[in-house]
Parts: sequence; C-alpha cells; structure tokens
Amino acid sequence: MSERIVVIGAVAAGPKAACRVKRLLPDAEVTLLDQDDLISYGGCGIPYYVSGDVSDEKELRATSFHMLRDERFFKEAKGLNVMTLTRAVSIDRKEKVVNVENVKSGEKSQVPYDKLVIATGSQPNVIPVPGHDLNGVFTISNLHKAIAIKELLAQGKVEKAVVIGGGAIGIEMAEALADLWGIETKIVEFMPQVLPRIVDVTIARMVEQHLRENNVEVFTNEGAQKFEGTDDGWVKKVITNKRELECDLVIMAAGVRPRGELAKEAGLEVSPYGAIVVNQRMQTSDPSIYAAGDCVETYNLVTGKKAYAPLGSVANRQGRVVGDNLAGIPSRFDGVVGSFIMKVFDICVGATGVSTDVAKSEGFEAVSAMAVQSDRAHFFPTQALMFNNIVVNKTDRRVLGLQGFAKMGDGLLARLNAAAGMIARRAVIDDFSNLELAYAPPFSTAVDVLNAAANIADNLVSGRLKIVSPEEFVDWMDGKSDHPDWMALDLRHPKEAEPWVKAFPEKWYAMVYDQVRSHYQELPKDKTFIIICNAGTRSYEIQVFLRSVGIDNTLVLAGGLNVIRRLGVSWWQQ
Amino acid sequence: MSERIVVIGAVAAGPKAACRVKRLLPDAEVTLLDQDDLISYGGCGIPYYVSGDVSDEKELRATSFHMLRDERFFKEAKGLNVMTLTRAVSIDRKEKVVNVENVKSGEKSQVPYDKLVIATGSQPNVIPVPGHDLNGVFTISNLHKAIAIKELLAQGKVEKAVVIGGGAIGIEMAEALADLWGIETKIVEFMPQVLPRIVDVTIARMVEQHLRENNVEVFTNEGAQKFEGTDDGWVKKVITNKRELECDLVIMAAGVRPRGELAKEAGLEVSPYGAIVVNQRMQTSDPSIYAAGDCVETYNLVTGKKAYAPLGSVANRQGRVVGDNLAGIPSRFDGVVGSFIMKVFDICVGATGVSTDVAKSEGFEAVSAMAVQSDRAHFFPTQALMFNNIVVNKTDRRVLGLQGFAKMGDGLLARLNAAAGMIARRAVIDDFSNLELAYAPPFSTAVDVLNAAANIADNLVSGRLKIVSPEEFVDWMDGKSDHPDWMALDLRHPKEAEPWVKAFPEKWYAMVYDQVRSHYQELPKDKTFIIICNAGTRSYEIQVFLRSVGIDNTLVLAGGLNVIRRLGVSWWQQ
Repeated sequence: MSERIVVIGAVAAGPKAACRVKRLLPDAEVTLLDQDDLISYGGCGIPYYVSGDVSDEKELRATSFHMLRDERFFKEAKGLNVMTLTRAVSIDRKEKVVNVENVKSGEKSQVPYDKLVIATGSQPNVIPVPGHDLNGVFTISNLHKAIAIKELLAQGKVEKAVVIGGGAIGIEMAEALADLWGIETKIVEFMPQVLPRIVDVTIARMVEQHLRENNVEVFTNEGAQKFEGTDDGWVKKVITNKRELECDLVIMAAGVRPRGELAKEAGLEVSPYGAIVVNQRMQTSDPSIYAAGDCVETYNLVTGKKAYAPLGSVANRQGRVVGDNLAGIPSRFDGVVGSFIMKVFDICVGATGVSTDVAKSEGFEAVSAMAVQSDRAHFFPTQALMFNNIVVNKTDRRVLGLQGFAKMGDGLLARLNAAAGMIARRAVIDDFSNLELAYAPPFSTAVDVLNAAANIADNLVSGRLKIVSPEEFVDWMDGKSDHPDWMALDLRHPKEAEPWVKAFPEKWYAMVYDQVRSHYQELPKDKTFIIICNAGTRSYEIQVFLRSVGIDNTLVLAGGLNVIRRLGVSWWQQ
Repeated sequence: MSERIVVIGAVAAGPKAACRVKRLLPDAEVTLLDQDDLISYGGCGIPYYVSGDVSDEKELRATSFHMLRDERFFKEAKGLNVMTLTRAVSIDRKEKVVNVENVKSGEKSQVPYDKLVIATGSQPNVIPVPGHDLNGVFTISNLHKAIAIKELLAQGKVEKAVVIGGGAIGIEMAEALADLWGIETKIVEFMPQVLPRIVDVTIARMVEQHLRENNVEVFTNEGAQKFEGTDDGWVKKVITNKRELECDLVIMAAGVRPRGELAKEAGLEVSPYGAIVVNQRMQTSDPSIYAAGDCVETYNLVTGKKAYAPLGSVANRQGRVVGDNLAGIPSRFDGVVGSFIMKVFDICVGATGVSTDVAKSEGFEAVSAMAVQSDRAHFFPTQALMFNNIVVNKTDRRVLGLQGFAKMGDGLLARLNAAAGMIARRAVIDDFSNLELAYAPPFSTAVDVLNAAANIADNLVSGRLKIVSPEEFVDWMDGKSDHPDWMALDLRHPKEAEPWVKAFPEKWYAMVYDQVRSHYQELPKDKTFIIICNAGTRSYEIQVFLRSVGIDNTLVLAGGLNVIRRLGVSWWQQ
C-alpha cells in the first residue's frame, strides 16, 4: 500500500509540503485538509487587496499562470486528495488517525496517516479590553475578514479608522485605508515606537514622521483600554490611556500567536507560548509527525535562542524541508535571522538580524552605526539617499543586524539581502567592509552604503569615531535634557549653515569643512563640539583632525542633518 | 620625523589609501602624485557622461556634498601633499625615493618615502590592426578621452559608430551613443557572445536581442581586421572578417591591462601579464611598498586561482586595506568573486561568481539552472519577470555563480548581492534554497526567484529534472540540428498553445497542465517529449508525473517560452 501522508492546514507551509512530497514520492497518497474553503492564499497580500492595488481576492489565490489555487487545482494539477471545510478535531497518535469534522454539516470522520504534517498557522491576538467584540472591530485572521473589510470600505461606511498596533501589518493596513480610500487613520502603539524590537528608534522615528506626512497620525506609548460602541453595537470610539479617538473601524494588528492547540492536545511538545517544538528536520516530538509554518517554534541564528517567526517566506521554506524529509531527503531548516521589508507610502523600511535593543537585552555589547549615502552614484540622475543602520557587537566585532530606510524601490532589499546570509554565518565588521556588492553607477556606489556602514562601525568600535545619537541631540535642541557647554560646529557650505547660526547664535558655530585645518585655532575654547554635516562623513574627518591638534572634546552627530531632517522636529523649518 | 607615505596614482585606490592613512595617522606626511591634472574621478561614470545623463565632467569629480575633488581639495580638506601633472619615472628602492618628472615642464625631482603605494591603474588594450591610430578611433583610457568624444558628438560630427568589444564598457558606450545621440551604432565582438566569460550564453543572447531591439546591431564571432581612414586621416570604415562597417567613430573597448611597468622596472614581482603581485595585506614583494587597484593581481575566491579584477569598487576596498596596513591595522583583502551589474537600455544584467563556461574550464562539473519568475508578488501591479541563472558544481553541490537578467531597476542587484557573500563563503545549493531574503509583496515573492533557482538546481543535480537548453531547442526549431522524434508537449492555456499547434502540427502537442494526470494516456507514443510552459515550473511537475506512470523520455525546456521569447527567434512572431 502506498504511504498515506496527511497535511493539516492549506495556506502556505501545508500546500508547499504536500506538493513537494507528492513530486518526490508520486505514489504516495497525500491528503491536504483545511477548515476553510479559501485555501493557499497569499496572506501577506491582504493589505494590498484592501487598498485596492489588488482588485480581486482571487488574485491572491492564483498561480503566476493565472490558475485558481482551489480544491480542484490541488486535486487535478497536483494530484492531492483535498478536504476543505474540514476541521482537524484531534490527533490519535496511537491509531495514527486524524479525527475531523465537516464545519458545515458537522459530520465526523477519521483520516488515517502514516506521516502527518501540522501546518495550522497562527491567529491574531485579540486585546482583551471591553468592546473588543463590537461590530467594526477586525483582526486580519484570514481572507474572509479582508473581504468583509473591503466591502465595508466600498460601501462608503468608514470615515475614521484606528489601527491598534504599529508593527508591519498595522502600518500596511493604515496605508491601505488612508492612501486609496482617504480614510482618516490613526495608529495606536503600546510601545514607545513603531516597529518595536524590529528597528532602532532612529529608523522608527523616520517611519513615524513619514506616516504623519501622509496623514496617518501615530500615537506611541499608548494602549487601547476600551472600545465604545453605538447603541446598535458598532464601534464608535477607541479610548487609550491618553485620549479618545472617534472611529467607525478598528483594525487590531497586535501580533499573532501560534495555533498549537491541536498538537498540544495530542501530547506533542509545545513551547510555553504554544508553538510546536520541532527539530531541524521540522519533526515534532513524535517522529511520524512534522510541523511547519506559523504554528512552530524556530531558532534565532543571531541570539542562539528559540524564536517565533510567523512569516510567509519562512513557512514556504519550512514546508519544502518537510516535503524533503517525508521523502527521505535529509534537508534541514536551521533557523532565522528575521529578514523583513515593507513599503510605507513612498519609502521602504526593513531589517535583518536583531535591533540594538534586542541585542542588548540578549547580552550583547551592541552599538549601531548609521551610514547615510546615495543609493547609487551621486552623479546619477535618479539617486536618492539611503540610510543603513548596522548593529555590531563591540567585543568580537560580529555583525548582529542591519536596518534600512530608503525611497520606495528595491535598493534597500539589495542591502538587506546581502546582509542576511552573512549575519547567519556570523560575519564580522571586516567581512561587511569588504563585501563584494555589484557596482555600476546606475545601481550603487564604488563604496556601497552597506560597506560604508561597516566602515563607520569599524571606526566607532575602534574608538576613533565618537558620536552623539540623533535622539540625544534632539533632546538637547528641544531642551528636554542638556549637555554642559555644547556647541554645534557646522561644516556645511556657509549658505546651508548661516540660518542656523542666526537662529542659535549661542550654540551654533560655522566653519566650512575644508577650512578647518587652516582655521581651527579660531574655534571657541572649552566647548564640547557637536560636529555637524549632512551625513556624518565630513564630521568624522574633522573629529580625527581636531583630536590630532589636541581638541578632544568633540562628538559627531551620527547620520548628520539628513537624519534630523526626517524626524519632523519643530526647530527644523528655519 | 613624521612618516613619509607616497602614493603614486590619484584616481580610485590611491586617494582612498592616502585619505584613510591620513585619518589613521594624522601626523604622517602623505603625498599623492599623478601624471594627470584630472584626478579622483568616477571612471565608471564615463558612459553616462558621454550619453548626457551626467551633463558636466566635474560631476564625476565632485563629492556627494558638491566639492570638486581637485588638488586643492585633497590639500585643504584632506591634509595631503598633492603633486599633479607629475609622472613617476622610476622607483629607487634602495634609496627609497621616487624619481618624478613634471609632464609639462619636464622638470625632474625626487620624492623620498618611508612607505610607498603604487596605484597606477590600467590602460585599455589597443587592437594592433592597421588604422588603429586613425583620428576618430578612441579608447576610454581617461577623462580627457571622454571629454573629446563628447565634444565630437556635440558638434554633430558623428553619424555612425562602431564599438569594438561587447563587454560591459563596450555595451555601455554603445547605449550612450545610440540612446541620446541617436547614432547608428554597431558592436563587434570577437567571441561568440557578448559579455563573454561573464554570463552564460542564454543570458548573453537575451542581452544581444535587447540591444537589437534598441537599434544597436551586434556582430559576434567577428574581429576587427583593419580600420580604413579618409584622406585626411579620419576613420571611415571598420573591416572585420565578415563585413565592412562604415563609421566616423570607433570606440575600442577590448579590455584593459594593468600598468605594472613601474613596479616591474623597480624589481617588484609582477604576474606574466604585468599585474603587480601582492599578498592579502596588499603588500608587494618589497614590504615597504603596497599596491592596489587596477594594477594588481588578486585571487578568485571561486576558482582558487590568481585573477585580475579591474573594478572601481574593488580598487576602493583595496585602497582602504592599504590605508589600514600602513597604519598597522592588519586588514586583509582576500580576493574577489567578480560581482558585476550593468544597465542596458530598459533592462539590467549582472553576475557574481563564475559562468558555466569558466567553471567548466576550471575543472568543475558545472551545470546551470534558470529560474524565471515574477520579481515581486505576481498580484502586485509593478511586477516583472526576473531571470536568475545559478551555476553549481554537481559533485559537491557548491554554488559557483549566479547571473541575472531583469527589467531595469534594483531587483537584480538584490539577488546578486545576496549571492556574492554566500559564494565567497563556499555555500551549497541548500544554503541558497533556504537563504532568508526579505519578503513583502511589493518587493519579492514568498519563495524568491533566487531560492527558486537553487531549488531547480537541486532538482537538476539530483537527477529529478532533465532539461534541454534554450539554445539546443532553438537549433532544433531552426533546423540547425535535430533530435529524433521529439515533440513539444505544450502545457499552457489552450489559447496560448493553439497557434503553435497550427504552425507546427507535426511537432506540437497541446495538453493543459491540469489535465495531464487524467489524460496522459492520450499522448502519442514513442516520442521524446519536450515539455513546455512559460517558465519551466509546470513542465517539471509534469515530467515527474509522467515518469511515475512510465513515460520516461521527456525533457523540460529550461526557463520555458519566457526565455525563447527574449531570444529574437524567427519563428516566434506567430
């Protein structure tokens, strides 16, 4: 009898595992079951469906050659048995059967297996505050919810929306609502920044400012405490610890958690937060049962600790590894570095590896270095600034992470992708300084922004470069904190520096970059100079020079005014 | 006395080494000398200056903050001694002096050094055929030549141009002439394809076709044998082994060779072709003398052999390593994988690592696998096809190279950059299958085209996928060669397949992808089926299925009709 392989869950990891093993073992009897009738959809495309960029939900379920990935497709094209609208109720590991139930008829039956794959995915967190179950409060748990939201929008029933959660999905949904539909949209984030634990605060602030520039208000450090409804039960207000926000739509995007209940009840090992524990072959604690996708725990290749990485790309790659192992090919999934990228209106932001905060909390002596540079040759007409923030461990110079902010396009992807494999392989600063990125003027610079970030990190870790962070500098300028006797030393062209000298005559001193070597003796004495230019490069050169002539009390404004300019500070507009 | 460091050559590696060591050792006396007065220019930008994308040559010599990198700049901003129009005539290693000569006055003098850096760059090859010294025959040896060419163009003196050499610079120059200036431009390439030894023939053919579509004719397998001139000595004709091409401008872009003469005459070790031999610290055979940039030999990290890599990005990184070592920091330059990218009108093409041909000639059992896939989610509006061709070693599954062809943009850069560091670190197919590329629908697909290329290579190397190359298939269709009893099995939508079945009734059989499992018994017997779809993915699935039902004589058309369509074959237009 041919081997019976049963796969529970038919969105990403499940179909990938099922199709791969069917190709490797054409004689196997592979059954794919799912409680839904909409299967194998691109869940990451939901915000683009809601926005209207993708006009029909069927596009999220179509192959690149325009066949709908429905039950019929997996049967006829892929040769699988498919059972949709079929919920796996329990797993009888002794008898090797899955007890299932038809979600419409309630009819119960049993599906026997020789090998089982659990790909039950994740479910969105619901914030347990009063009113979370009002009409108009949505999570993005599946395609049905997306369709319902889009219908509401199309009917013109939404004027004001609140998104709870400033992570990737929250921001993507906010853009979808605000950009095409013109809905007054606000984001409420419990943590002190958007994209918490993903990017450092400087990058987060730049994203927040870009959201504001696109009419999406962002409230950080605020938690939703209550949702108020109309008499007929429709949400009308979100109440946070600081304010009340009127709305007629709430999107709860407060993260997801693994659907590990089925596995747990079957006695398989699960993590404290409910993710299924698997080995590098994606095998659970029962060797006949594999698991993959949003329902499993994985391993962080930077921290060396267990991690949870609910991402469509990870699910697909894990699914293939499951397929291989079911067929006796010993493929492995070793873990993740957490590569991430997203579009936010006209910019993109992304990261790979860990942020400085996460690195510190994991015990690394982490520092970050920001390179701000043209994404391509500065003489090439389409050039734009790119920001690369590299996170390194001071003690062993290991690169722990990279984050970036750039004009919308694929340029940031090119730097993140270059870094991902290197970080996974424990590369150090010098490996990044010398990383051989493809170069031609229409694409990059001879010393790429990523090489440059590593070079800055080298100077920082070696103690040659001493910096003040943009956040600290902004606090001084805002008067929130102060540093005794600091003074800006502005190296830019006199026309650029002049308005600043006028606005802050006590604090701002201008001396053009190429005049410092001959005129440094005119500098005021006994000041801590905050050396300022647009990107930080000229400032570093001058810091080194001033040190050589005995002026040691200097700090370079990291990333220069190109960063400050993107933070939306009140004193910039002069 | 402070250390005297002398740097010969002030274009890329030289200034980088000089500026870096001056920052590290502010007390050192660093002298930068060059025979030219135009220094520190972005040589890779020359085609964009000639085309007009860059309007003024000064932009190629400006910093990102718009200061001109001239003699004054390096003196005042960087604190170097600078001697332009100063040719290094010889190096007296015993006395540690460089004998120099002012190229205008002829005045001779001596520049003493404690440490010396040779960064004398490269010079273009001149094809030694009659007429190579006619007026109107140019090499792109420096900025002066570029200025002279652009002046000719601006004066309207050029109607027809011939570019000798279909490498990167030749193609870039051809585009510059044809695109903005509307000059009738032809490329003559001695080898059987453009970009020889850089990309595989399939990618090269796609580039050649794109050039043709943009009115640049390409003649491969043709060498220039003679240049004919007018009575007043201006070039009027290029004569190859196959034809005569009228022209009033010839660009010789036949590669470059290292300027190692100065080093050789000083008794330093140079390679048989004249490149200066250095160790990983960029130190020559004389420990007091370093060398970097286009004049040195380096090491190919894929083949493990000596290599020559005259690239601006390599020169800059080597220059930094020299600066470090001059200051006692033991940085290393380990070698190159040969990352490369270029714009060709509306597309881009690039590579990293080695091509299949080069790999085979170096003794690898190399095969290549082509993935053809949307660069971003296929439901995302701006998606376009991307071609990734991965080269692997069958015996140990090591990835040896990656080449790509894509719509102009940064998407290809993202895949090449991801591969470069991995190839340098001897990654295998499985590392690429699982490479964690950043994913969101506006940027990529859940299984990225690069992951997919590795997956195809896995199937190919494991013997599950059996392919016919596009070139072989084209030869069959063109009747240049034949395969007994082959028949196309076209899996596409009936509307797509129908015209082909009509055009080639004896050779073309259509059966839709999702009908093969139920209808395969209707297939003609005793044929070798060439399974055809748009990308090769459906074809692989059907090949595996047919094998499972005993139909073994099948080959998948690698890359599918999406590749064929870009080759400009005569029988496509139906």
